[in-house]
Amino acid sequence: MNPENWLRLNRVVRFGDTDAAGVMHFHHLFRWCHESWEESLQHYGIASEDIFPSNRNGDVTPKVALPIIHCQADFRRPIQTSNSLVVELRPEQLNPNSFQVHFEFRHDNQVAAIALIRHLAINAQTRQRCALPEGIARWLEASNLGRIGSI
Amino acid sequence: MNPENWLRLNRVVRFGDTDAAGVMHFHHLFRWCHESWEESLQHYGIASEDIFPSNRNGDVTPKVALPIIHCQADFRRPIQTSNSLVVELRPEQLNPNSFQVHFEFRHDNQVAAIALIRHLAINAQTRQRCALPEGIARWLEASNLGRIGSI
Amino acid sequence: MNPENWLRLNRVVRFGDTDAAGVMHFHHLFRWCHESWEESLQHYGIASEDIFPSNRNGDVTPKVALPIIHCQADFRRPIQTSNSLVVELRPEQLNPNSFQVHFEFRHDNQVAAIALIRHLAINAQTRQRCALPEGIARWLEASNLGRIGSI
Amino acid sequence: MNPENWLRLNRVVRFGDTDAAGVMHFHHLFRWCHESWEESLQHYGIASEDIFPSNRNGDVTPKVALPIIHCQADFRRPIQTSNSLVVELRPEQLNPNSFQVHFEFRHDNQVAAIALIRHLAINAQTRQRCALPEGIARWLEASNLGRIGSI
Repeated sequence: MNPENWLRLNRVVRFGDTDAAGVMHFHHLFRWCHESWEESLQHYGIASEDIFPSNRNGDVTPKVALPIIHCQADFRRPIQTSNSLVVELRPEQLNPNSFQVHFEFRHDNQVAAIALIRHLAINAQTRQRCALPEGIARWLEASNLGRIGSI
Repeated sequence: MNPENWLRLNRVVRFGDTDAAGVMHFHHLFRWCHESWEESLQHYGIASEDIFPSNRNGDVTPKVALPIIHCQADFRRPIQTSNSLVVELRPEQLNPNSFQVHFEFRHDNQVAAIALIRHLAINAQTRQRCALPEGIARWLEASNLGRIGSI
Repeated sequence: MNPENWLRLNRVVRFGDTDAAGVMHFHHLFRWCHESWEESLQHYGIASEDIFPSNRNGDVTPKVALPIIHCQADFRRPIQTSNSLVVELRPEQLNPNSFQVHFEFRHDNQVAAIALIRHLAINAQTRQRCALPEGIARWLEASNLGRIGSI
Repeated sequence: MNPENWLRLNRVVRFGDTDAAGVMHFHHLFRWCHESWEESLQHYGIASEDIFPSNRNGDVTPKVALPIIHCQADFRRPIQTSNSLVVELRPEQLNPNSFQVHFEFRHDNQVAAIALIRHLAINAQTRQRCALPEGIARWLEASNLGRIGSI
């Protein structure tokens, strides 16, 4: 599988993402990042119920939670309703318990914004640090292989 | 206690509530409704953990869930950043398992929007209809006594 | 062009759409409706800048605004993270100045929620009722032809 | 006036701020920051229409726009429905065209999250850097005087 399939995504800006200044209201960028991350895992083939808590029959929630401990963004150019964005993800493992994802949003081949989201893996019961879920570990590894291959 | 204290609330419109048309983006009204309802319960004295699921130590989630089964809104006048709104709640029990809350948003003594949210009480495990939580029943009763008293 | 292309859309539920009850938090449904409507117009071929205000060079905002005057929703079944929804739109012109769109959200061939959003066309300067924008009129007509054709 | 009045604010976490993990969904923190900043300006006495674009009669939008060019946050402890937060703002001018605000969110006297939002002043027409709006300059100065006074 080509990493293009799960690390390069598309998003169209919608009217409700804007504010009265006529451009994207800043914090929606983080929603886009998280949704792109979920889409990336989905395209790669990780089952959502292995990563995200839910309320399904049987109530088996993942043993590992992945709270966000840090995030940041830089806004370079105004983003407007109906802009068609390319979203490029660059996942990076930091240590056995933590990883981060870099996001780049481009419009008309120019970088409109970049962002970073850092997750920590914890045991959902004890809240102690633990190993990354197996699916995340595979996705991180494949993403980095993909990138090396594309140099 | 005067029902004014928990059925008449205030809210200031913030910039992120607007869209590129310069006015409140419609669906934020429902967020305001729900937040006003939570504030009303809080002012009346209902403990949040008796009504809303959470993730606290021990993980004791309320036995009764209150999913929203219907909501609607009418928008009468544009609502803008920094508008100071009066939010008036009118709770109404429909039957032993269900209640709804009417919301009226006024600005400068004119109705800017009205809304309605209808909840059903269900057992959080079985998803079967059940009696309203005791706190909600008390809040409904007190709200209606308050209104009769104010005629 | 087949109306399937602009009246039947897809949406995947994302983690940020849920609340601590483990299911979709109700008001996100209206965001999904509006985004589906924008996607429908886009697929049909209406230029976004003809319908939605923006902040582009030259600042030519559409002469006609389409504020929402009413909306409502019924929630039939819990909607969860990663659920893949089919969104079906049924546009309906009400009179020369107004139209509404019915939305049906299905998951696993069962209706999970329905919604309705009603718009009024007004002159963006005078705030007086006016004719629908030409693009909206075409989209409404084509949508209804499409439906008749599919009977 | 005591800077306590406009630099130390309160916020109650609401149910819609959570996700299926039972805690605050991360990006809402930035919404809280921006709303706290608006509340701070309001308490200090800056007219909203001098700072934020709107759609009022006459359509006089501020000449200076204050787009966010950078933001970041660190999440230290889980934040849950009904938590009562103290929000402390620390504004800082960076140069004649730019300022940032540090935000600290405390719950039960422990820091739950910190954030930073950096704004650039630009001419709303030409998009060129310009001086900060007079109201912002006064608020920045008073905020820093207040802090010095409180040492």
